[in-house]
Amino acid sequence: MPRLSFWFEFASTYSYLSAMRIEAMAAAADVGIDWRPFLLGPIFRAQGWETSPFNLYPAKGRYMVRDIERIATARGLVFRLPDPFPQNGLLAARLATVGAADGWIADFVRAVYRAEFAEGRDISDAAVLADLLAAVGVEAGPAFAAAASPAIKDRLRAATEEAMRLGLFGAPSFVAPDGELYWGDDRLEAAIAHTAAVPISS
Amino acid sequence: MPRLSFWFEFASTYSYLSAMRIEAMAAAADVGIDWRPFLLGPIFRAQGWETSPFNLYPAKGRYMVRDIERIATARGLVFRLPDPFPQNGLLAARLATVGAADGWIADFVRAVYRAEFAEGRDISDAAVLADLLAAVGVEAGPAFAAAASPAIKDRLRAATEEAMRLGLFGAPSFVAPDGELYWGDDRLEAAIAHTAAVPISS
Repeated sequence: MPRLSFWFEFASTYSYLSAMRIEAMAAAADVGIDWRPFLLGPIFRAQGWETSPFNLYPAKGRYMVRDIERIATARGLVFRLPDPFPQNGLLAARLATVGAADGWIADFVRAVYRAEFAEGRDISDAAVLADLLAAVGVEAGPAFAAAASPAIKDRLRAATEEAMRLGLFGAPSFVAPDGELYWGDDRLEAAIAHTAAVPISS
Repeated sequence: MPRLSFWFEFASTYSYLSAMRIEAMAAAADVGIDWRPFLLGPIFRAQGWETSPFNLYPAKGRYMVRDIERIATARGLVFRLPDPFPQNGLLAARLATVGAADGWIADFVRAVYRAEFAEGRDISDAAVLADLLAAVGVEAGPAFAAAASPAIKDRLRAATEEAMRLGLFGAPSFVAPDGELYWGDDRLEAAIAHTAAVPISS
């Protein structure tokens, strides 16, 4: 089964849209998904941005909210811009990195996005994340201990460096087995169709 | 028939994609199109950008080229990034403003985009634009004279100011009769569907 890498950042509103639909879409196309948490902060800072472009460029930020409201409504999702925006997703991303190794990343990522963008919860709060871990059947203590380990911190840092090497500049991004890069929830259909058609050898 | 405003800028690669398909799509949905040339330069400068974001952010620029190549291929279009990029589209935009009043704007706009992004021609060159006018059956002399008139220059300037008031920050943008704003060629289907469903009174 060919695999598509799904690069997401917890602060990213469009990543929320993709996280909620990617698994069903990929399964229908016989494509596997590698969930790849990374941090946009270092990539944005390398471009000279100290916050989200949606804050730096207010007209773009207002449009993004309306655009996502329309799409979320059409898909039966709730969307409310969190306050503050962007949320700090570092701890959540470290936990997701643990979950990638332990097999619970997909459920956890969806739970975090739902809490952040549908329920108005603060995903930088360890107590909120502990709730979400419990809700997806993961014991919080060992997960937090692993998330605080140098090995996991290094792995997330390395993932962000890999994202930069791959040419990623935003999220969500999708990388097919042959290296084709797709950016944005609106390219998810194309990314999956392309991956399904890639020869397995590549 | 409800009408959708199509705001485009000649330097914009994604506007090319929309210009080549919008009329057939709109006709199929019983939607009329108002072709609205404007200038992104003043809007980008207000955001602190002195050139295209695709030049300011090279990873984004490389991705844009590949993204458009894929889409153009799927639609049977040729795409080559012009050199230099972006092209100076001021004179072309003034001529298009003349064409909006005289009824030949759609054919002219498609001819300019084809010359710029498929044929590698320099659309800041008056001789090239004269060729394109002739190709769409417009007498060049009166069109250039009108394009140089204060009335047309003012109209294009006013269009750019209107674009800023409407919250536009990029191109292509689409504005429905009820004010709903859509940005990007990938939102054209949604913009037309929304416009087709808007009550005529709004």
